[in-house]
Amino acid sequence: MNSRNPGVPATPRAQRPPAPLPRDELAAVLEPGGSGCMLPAAAYTNDDVLAWEREQFFDRAWVCAGRSGDLAAAGARRAVRVGNDRALLVRGDDGTLRAFYNVCRHRGHELMACGGPAVTRGAIHCPYHAWTYDLAGDLTATPRFNAPPSFDRTDHGLVPMRVEEWRGFAMVNPSGDAPALSVYLGAFDELLAPWEPERLVVAASHEYVLQANWKLPIENYQECYHCAAIHPELCVVSPPDSGDNYTLPGMWVGGAMALADHAQTMSLDGQSRGVVLPGLSAEQARTVLYVGVFPNLLLSAHPDYVMTHRIEPVSPTETWVECQWLFDPAAISREGFDPAYAVDFWDITNRQDWDACEGVQRGVSSRGYRPGPFGLQEDAVQQFVHLVARSYLAGDLVA
Amino acid sequence: MNSRNPGVPATPRAQRPPAPLPRDELAAVLEPGGSGCMLPAAAYTNDDVLAWEREQFFDRAWVCAGRSGDLAAAGARRAVRVGNDRALLVRGDDGTLRAFYNVCRHRGHELMACGGPAVTRGAIHCPYHAWTYDLAGDLTATPRFNAPPSFDRTDHGLVPMRVEEWRGFAMVNPSGDAPALSVYLGAFDELLAPWEPERLVVAASHEYVLQANWKLPIENYQECYHCAAIHPELCVVSPPDSGDNYTLPGMWVGGAMALADHAQTMSLDGQSRGVVLPGLSAEQARTVLYVGVFPNLLLSAHPDYVMTHRIEPVSPTETWVECQWLFDPAAISREGFDPAYAVDFWDITNRQDWDACEGVQRGVSSRGYRPGPFGLQEDAVQQFVHLVARSYLAGDLVA
Amino acid sequence: MNSRNPGVPATPRAQRPPAPLPRDELAAVLEPGGSGCMLPAAAYTNDDVLAWEREQFFDRAWVCAGRSGDLAAAGARRAVRVGNDRALLVRGDDGTLRAFYNVCRHRGHELMACGGPAVTRGAIHCPYHAWTYDLAGDLTATPRFNAPPSFDRTDHGLVPMRVEEWRGFAMVNPSGDAPALSVYLGAFDELLAPWEPERLVVAASHEYVLQANWKLPIENYQECYHCAAIHPELCVVSPPDSGDNYTLPGMWVGGAMALADHAQTMSLDGQSRGVVLPGLSAEQARTVLYVGVFPNLLLSAHPDYVMTHRIEPVSPTETWVECQWLFDPAAISREGFDPAYAVDFWDITNRQDWDACEGVQRGVSSRGYRPGPFGLQEDAVQQFVHLVARSYLAGDLVA
Repeated sequence: MNSRNPGVPATPRAQRPPAPLPRDELAAVLEPGGSGCMLPAAAYTNDDVLAWEREQFFDRAWVCAGRSGDLAAAGARRAVRVGNDRALLVRGDDGTLRAFYNVCRHRGHELMACGGPAVTRGAIHCPYHAWTYDLAGDLTATPRFNAPPSFDRTDHGLVPMRVEEWRGFAMVNPSGDAPALSVYLGAFDELLAPWEPERLVVAASHEYVLQANWKLPIENYQECYHCAAIHPELCVVSPPDSGDNYTLPGMWVGGAMALADHAQTMSLDGQSRGVVLPGLSAEQARTVLYVGVFPNLLLSAHPDYVMTHRIEPVSPTETWVECQWLFDPAAISREGFDPAYAVDFWDITNRQDWDACEGVQRGVSSRGYRPGPFGLQEDAVQQFVHLVARSYLAGDLVA
Repeated sequence: MNSRNPGVPATPRAQRPPAPLPRDELAAVLEPGGSGCMLPAAAYTNDDVLAWEREQFFDRAWVCAGRSGDLAAAGARRAVRVGNDRALLVRGDDGTLRAFYNVCRHRGHELMACGGPAVTRGAIHCPYHAWTYDLAGDLTATPRFNAPPSFDRTDHGLVPMRVEEWRGFAMVNPSGDAPALSVYLGAFDELLAPWEPERLVVAASHEYVLQANWKLPIENYQECYHCAAIHPELCVVSPPDSGDNYTLPGMWVGGAMALADHAQTMSLDGQSRGVVLPGLSAEQARTVLYVGVFPNLLLSAHPDYVMTHRIEPVSPTETWVECQWLFDPAAISREGFDPAYAVDFWDITNRQDWDACEGVQRGVSSRGYRPGPFGLQEDAVQQFVHLVARSYLAGDLVA
Repeated sequence: MNSRNPGVPATPRAQRPPAPLPRDELAAVLEPGGSGCMLPAAAYTNDDVLAWEREQFFDRAWVCAGRSGDLAAAGARRAVRVGNDRALLVRGDDGTLRAFYNVCRHRGHELMACGGPAVTRGAIHCPYHAWTYDLAGDLTATPRFNAPPSFDRTDHGLVPMRVEEWRGFAMVNPSGDAPALSVYLGAFDELLAPWEPERLVVAASHEYVLQANWKLPIENYQECYHCAAIHPELCVVSPPDSGDNYTLPGMWVGGAMALADHAQTMSLDGQSRGVVLPGLSAEQARTVLYVGVFPNLLLSAHPDYVMTHRIEPVSPTETWVECQWLFDPAAISREGFDPAYAVDFWDITNRQDWDACEGVQRGVSSRGYRPGPFGLQEDAVQQFVHLVARSYLAGDLVA
């Protein structure tokens, strides 16, 4: 497929620069002995740092481009934001999921509008001049085009983007040179397996825009020390000090928290209106897994649903978040099923978190900001911040 | 007039830098043999490229500053956007049209608000401290000003901007060093003469803001290959493959298209509610002329009206467009005359085009954008793109 | 207090760079013999100039952070914009006013929202994880925090900002190295003393956002030559040519204007609905004092009220202004007291002035802008502009 369109060449590893931040401030973050601290202010506010992150993190990592599980039929497709760019996800005749840059090879028009629903059709048409590509990205028709003599249709297939399907998610690696996805995810795939997200279906989806750097909602997600202060509803159904974090291989950080004795799941009254996922052990059905896959996927696995946050930087101080709730088809197909019990609970909690992130953004923008110390219960925040700081220094992703 | 205010000095020709774009990517655009392609992505997205274009194109070219035909009486004037700046167009006592930078020489207040209607008064008053200039720009009164000893009124006339009237349009050359307007326009003046736009009057005016680079509406204008896909209304009254483009001297690109047999003009039903312009031959009365005068005027000459688009960059990804419809005074003065038949048709078509331009802007902003090839029917787009690329390389306007 | 948090270290005096503006253009501003002129265009439009001003003016000067007079009780506090940053003003148990950067030392969350009302509580709590500071800024509690072994609470007090109370105003010096406030204010304190602003109370407060550089409302404030043209209401109650400016020591510029014979104060009908301030002489009760304390406080002292404008740059072309009206408590406590007679008059006048400032901003952004000459009645504008230009050249504040 499209052998002449090898995607976007990556900068050779040796030429990758470290992030534009003072080395001594990054060294302080990584100080051994538990006395490390938050990232320097510029990591949350500076245009050049974000440009570096887009190049080294969002293009070079495995980035979640949303669900692919619903793109089931041949020809099913959707245009999605992904990191720095836009991708077209397409299910091929052979059942393979492919991703392409969402751009026509003729005059550069986008092929589909982003953010719209999935559609299913036999071929990909550009809306501007009707150039047509098959599901493998090859250019198959150029209606009414009076081609110049040198024109060769096989030179003009869609530019592919590296993609792998993983448990119903489309994971893309725009630069094409990340390690294999299984290596990248390490132990997380096995950890998540009992929830079988590949079987689950999106029942609700919200979009949010935060006035905060993209790393702040992730740092906030990785600890429940703040729950007592800002999440009264959450504390009723899950003891905020019940968490424990993993130290297992892979580009992810996270842990699990227990449900309160009276609670079946995370909802305002602790009751579930869904079904317990059948693959879970009795112990798993009493916990919620909270994991952040670097750089942009937060995955919260409950006994009866999986919630995801997909995070994209808009500017150093603005972030887009897509939050989705996935349920067992057996629950969704039940008469009168309503995901509101899960959606409302987390929408309240999300907004409390975004307020906190915006308060931190205003704080780190001050000359009086001093990167503060982490408590022992903030170990997962520190793991995330260490991963970022090590990668800043190395000019490359370092788990 | 204002001999001590020689306008803004231009950079010497020898010191003008080429545009900040890779030479090899511009060379690919200009590749001989019809295999050239669109401009590189940065031409549509980069701040430095726009800054260069403002300096080398919009200051150094002849830029359309709108109509001057309606500024008939001595003292008639209007403040207008022009390229990078704002100008005050003024009809003198001697009948000459003059242009000045729209700035008082005292404390820098603008002299008139831009975008408002024309007014006619005997002298130019600054609204801030009432300094007063005559119609030639000389400072004639400074009421209540306790001048310092060194003050000499003749040092403080308005800063003139080079302007010529051409067929009812005010054409300005802010840098002052463009070739004579007649040389710049080349064969176009004679081509347009039968429509006599100098006789016509603006009957309607629209403003649009597009999320697209300023060159994209021009590229879109220069071909009707897209008409079949996005302009169903247009295709009813003008066969989209009926166009032919000129290769004549001058800083302009364009051609003519035929009307469908049943159509008198471009309107939703093909009917005209105006009058055929008296200077047209029978053949001219069956065609529409579409010409883009570099850099900012698109002029569409119909049998019964002339439409203009005036285009100004706001940012690399945002463009302001003023669209005006000019009719014969004999039509306008008729009982019940309504220009809606022309305005509605083109407003629909404009919006279809702006959607396309915005789709291209999103496409060229992707890492997957590859400058695509032009078909033979996109020759006028290629002419425009060549003019731009040659000028980028030369650091100067090259026809 | 917080001896280990010495605030933000200032750049050594010798290393301070001049402003990024051409020396010859600044020399022209300072030309002796009254033939000087306005600042060069870049002073009003350029990002780098504003960055320099924030560093050298708004951090290094004494900047007004609003009223402190109402923070009377121990624990009373308010978060306020100040120059480049945000400060928390706190009244201590010992009656001392303190200022801190409005940032928690743990994860960088702001301590209070800016712009809200003052509150009074015994301790300062961060809303994110409930870290608690006493009124002197010392960290006193970190509830539920599992501190790392190296953690020492005394290292994590709030970062102080230098502050002094002056006649009911909080004056801060973020860099910490400005001369003593009494030296900085010079003769102004004695001049203002009869109005006793320390006794007065805020009865109304407006916020404005102008599309103009922060220096333009100050230049506009420093002359009434424009009053005849744009302030008809003002001219009724105060002859626009009645002003005289001071040349006394201190970082301020200003003068006094007389009231019209029929007018008691500045209001639409010239009548006062307040009380004449008791400390004024008969002559002072017939004048209004208009003084700009560099860089951000305009103070207008009327017979019966004091009005302040607090000015903060948002961007080179956008400015935030807070306008407050202060009255004698004896007036405010009167049955049916309404400050509208003063507020409405100045709100009308403010808006006329902001229109003028925005007209100048558009003018100075033109290539046709030439810094214009000052009349003798614009001497205070020239004093202000000289202070700015001298400081630009010196890389330091020069009175």
